[in-house]
Amino acid sequence: MSSIGDTPARGDRTKVVVVGGGFGGVRVAKALAHADVDVTLVDRTNHHLFQPLLYQVATGILSPGLIAPALRRVVKKQSNTRTLLAEVFDIDLQAKVVHALAPNEQRLDLPYDYLVVAGGATHAYFGHDEWSHFAPGMKSIEDARMLRSQILGAYELAEVATDEKERDAYLTFVVVGAGPTGVELTGQLAELARYVLPKEYRTIDTRSARIILLDAAPSVLPPFAPKLQQYTQHRLEKMGVEIRLNTLATDMDADSITVKGPEGVDTITARTKIWAAGVQASPLAAMLAKATGTETDRAGRLAVDPDCSLPGAEGVYAIGDMVSTVDRLPGVAQVAMQQGTYVGRLIANRAKGDDTTPAPFHYFDKGSMATIGARQAVADVRGVKFTGYLAYLLWCYVHVMFLIGWGNRLGTLFNWVRSLRYARHRGHRLISMTGAQAVARHHEAA
Amino acid sequence: MSSIGDTPARGDRTKVVVVGGGFGGVRVAKALAHADVDVTLVDRTNHHLFQPLLYQVATGILSPGLIAPALRRVVKKQSNTRTLLAEVFDIDLQAKVVHALAPNEQRLDLPYDYLVVAGGATHAYFGHDEWSHFAPGMKSIEDARMLRSQILGAYELAEVATDEKERDAYLTFVVVGAGPTGVELTGQLAELARYVLPKEYRTIDTRSARIILLDAAPSVLPPFAPKLQQYTQHRLEKMGVEIRLNTLATDMDADSITVKGPEGVDTITARTKIWAAGVQASPLAAMLAKATGTETDRAGRLAVDPDCSLPGAEGVYAIGDMVSTVDRLPGVAQVAMQQGTYVGRLIANRAKGDDTTPAPFHYFDKGSMATIGARQAVADVRGVKFTGYLAYLLWCYVHVMFLIGWGNRLGTLFNWVRSLRYARHRGHRLISMTGAQAVARHHEAA
Repeated sequence: MSSIGDTPARGDRTKVVVVGGGFGGVRVAKALAHADVDVTLVDRTNHHLFQPLLYQVATGILSPGLIAPALRRVVKKQSNTRTLLAEVFDIDLQAKVVHALAPNEQRLDLPYDYLVVAGGATHAYFGHDEWSHFAPGMKSIEDARMLRSQILGAYELAEVATDEKERDAYLTFVVVGAGPTGVELTGQLAELARYVLPKEYRTIDTRSARIILLDAAPSVLPPFAPKLQQYTQHRLEKMGVEIRLNTLATDMDADSITVKGPEGVDTITARTKIWAAGVQASPLAAMLAKATGTETDRAGRLAVDPDCSLPGAEGVYAIGDMVSTVDRLPGVAQVAMQQGTYVGRLIANRAKGDDTTPAPFHYFDKGSMATIGARQAVADVRGVKFTGYLAYLLWCYVHVMFLIGWGNRLGTLFNWVRSLRYARHRGHRLISMTGAQAVARHHEAA
Repeated sequence: MSSIGDTPARGDRTKVVVVGGGFGGVRVAKALAHADVDVTLVDRTNHHLFQPLLYQVATGILSPGLIAPALRRVVKKQSNTRTLLAEVFDIDLQAKVVHALAPNEQRLDLPYDYLVVAGGATHAYFGHDEWSHFAPGMKSIEDARMLRSQILGAYELAEVATDEKERDAYLTFVVVGAGPTGVELTGQLAELARYVLPKEYRTIDTRSARIILLDAAPSVLPPFAPKLQQYTQHRLEKMGVEIRLNTLATDMDADSITVKGPEGVDTITARTKIWAAGVQASPLAAMLAKATGTETDRAGRLAVDPDCSLPGAEGVYAIGDMVSTVDRLPGVAQVAMQQGTYVGRLIANRAKGDDTTPAPFHYFDKGSMATIGARQAVADVRGVKFTGYLAYLLWCYVHVMFLIGWGNRLGTLFNWVRSLRYARHRGHRLISMTGAQAVARHHEAA
């Protein structure tokens, strides 16, 4: 067992380990930039992912690199912070050591004085884990690349299909879950079918593709205001999207999905199903709950105190999508970022010897927004509601500004201009060989 | 058996099948844009790859999408051309049918009047195919992505290594083959180690990385003029690259490579080996040779007549890296492109009923060039030799102009400016989970 926490330069200073380099984890590290502590930021990927734009990678607008800068570059200028590419597999709360594995299966033992766990969330299939093969979700860059291969691959296979039923199955896309991710992805699926792809195919008419969006809730964008919900539904329907509300997925296989709604049970023949319905907390939440003798909630989230500390574990904090607080905060980037800054500052104070009880974490809701295809969006900024092009420009501004680095901001803007003006161009449309084979396996699994 | 060559719109017109959407194949299709023929362009990937810039994907400068536009978009405006994503597995020269498999293993039978095979080349390990596991080459986007994961992953693993020998093994990079690809890749490896990565690591000094370039020839860039060879060698050595000439790889495993040179046999401990040494023709060359009762040359290339037609097969042409001609042309993009245009025009004339014997294909050598790290290059333009920054600007201009689409040109320029001026930024540095696992497997294979 080697402890790489004890390299010479890292002697007696307070050790802070941050698990997860997402919105929460990076904010913790940033808040500790000038603190007299040694920060170790561990993530199982080498990048900081801007998840809200993943759907644009899945639909060919953006290249993965623009929304996933190298994590160690993000904290490059903080000399007190080191970045490790490793997956945490155990946390010893008594000995105060985080155990992780590097990609070469080398074991890393990271002692801490303060630990912040920001592991995020993953897809939840509500007890139907086998659906993950048929209806992939979108949480990582690799998820988005696979989805891109599957979506664009479906058109390729439709083009060579000799059987009409098979062709229709390839040209039917079902998105399960009409939250912001589901709505944004559906809008782009419609853009691809209606405007981007038609002139490239000779056998099929891509405009005939069926795009179905379903949700168990009675409206799209459940947490948004009714006015914005109606606007969104109207716009999507105008783009040819079939919306099925109060509708649940009850079964699926490689070829079809069975849904139950107000009009009864219906089996839709569709090759491509995309899961945007449920999330569950990172397994790290259950690990910490077990270690402290508590239980997670239905979504696998860990209960934390109002200061984001973990009851029953000294110096341990948990933030973001993997925790639940008494005020039931939504699982969005803003919450994780604000919690990250809060906990980072709290630890910085503690490291200075300030042991006063901090004011509890308070979430400042800046608003929520979602795009609907190109040039349309809805936004709710502290009660003020925007729709249409103005909301879209607001969405563009906010999302570009939250990207890390001017290069990525300019590169993203450039791709957006290209996707809007220049013949609705989608510049990043690679189908990987692995992806094309996955479409094939998908077929064989039928 | 379904023949998708017989869809209604494609009745009695002359059928041209083009196998391969690389430099050669796309030029054939373009030359037939206004001909009264039906063109079917088959490729096993969905993109047209600009191979000369692959090394910039492998080293994080460019995103894959910029050098790999969707093939069906490239020929979108040619209504007589359809694109199929499928792999050719057989060609029936008697029945004049190309047999291919779509990603879902559906069999496609493509009848032709004229066939152009432009399958390109792949890596050759000179009878040591097992080396492909230890020293991957770079011919596809997936190759480049894997190399990027391996190169950047090696630094990640060096950072957590506890054993000094292991750390040195991760920080040693050996490039086998000092042609343009080997030289350009080596230059960028040096840039990464010396300028891009140093401030991001806390344990290792990336500037101590050993970068070795070896070649069996007595000089780098063997086909270039001695003056340019010397300049290149001098520049690389100034960047800290060890150059070993008259040196052959004789053995390798996951941990090391054994080389034999003027100073005897030496085993270098190095995790990362990159193969830029030999190429061999696509297996389609051997398939066609067998079918016509001829033999391929040592590099697996098919002999064609001066008009690029295949002796003994009616209406069949072969072009690019997979063929050999009497005038021993180099395996470069320019040759494939010029042959493509030549054959495309020839077929267009034939389809019009012009059966005169064409003038043999004549290669117009526009020159050759290679970059050496950032802001340095060598170029030989019809005997006029350039070195340094001027050659670099010339290289930039030529390579940007050969990219397809203004969006890709601007996007590439943008990334170049970013990589030069803005803190030598490498914007596309994703290590995929598959890639990180590959680094791990690479380790286990030891």
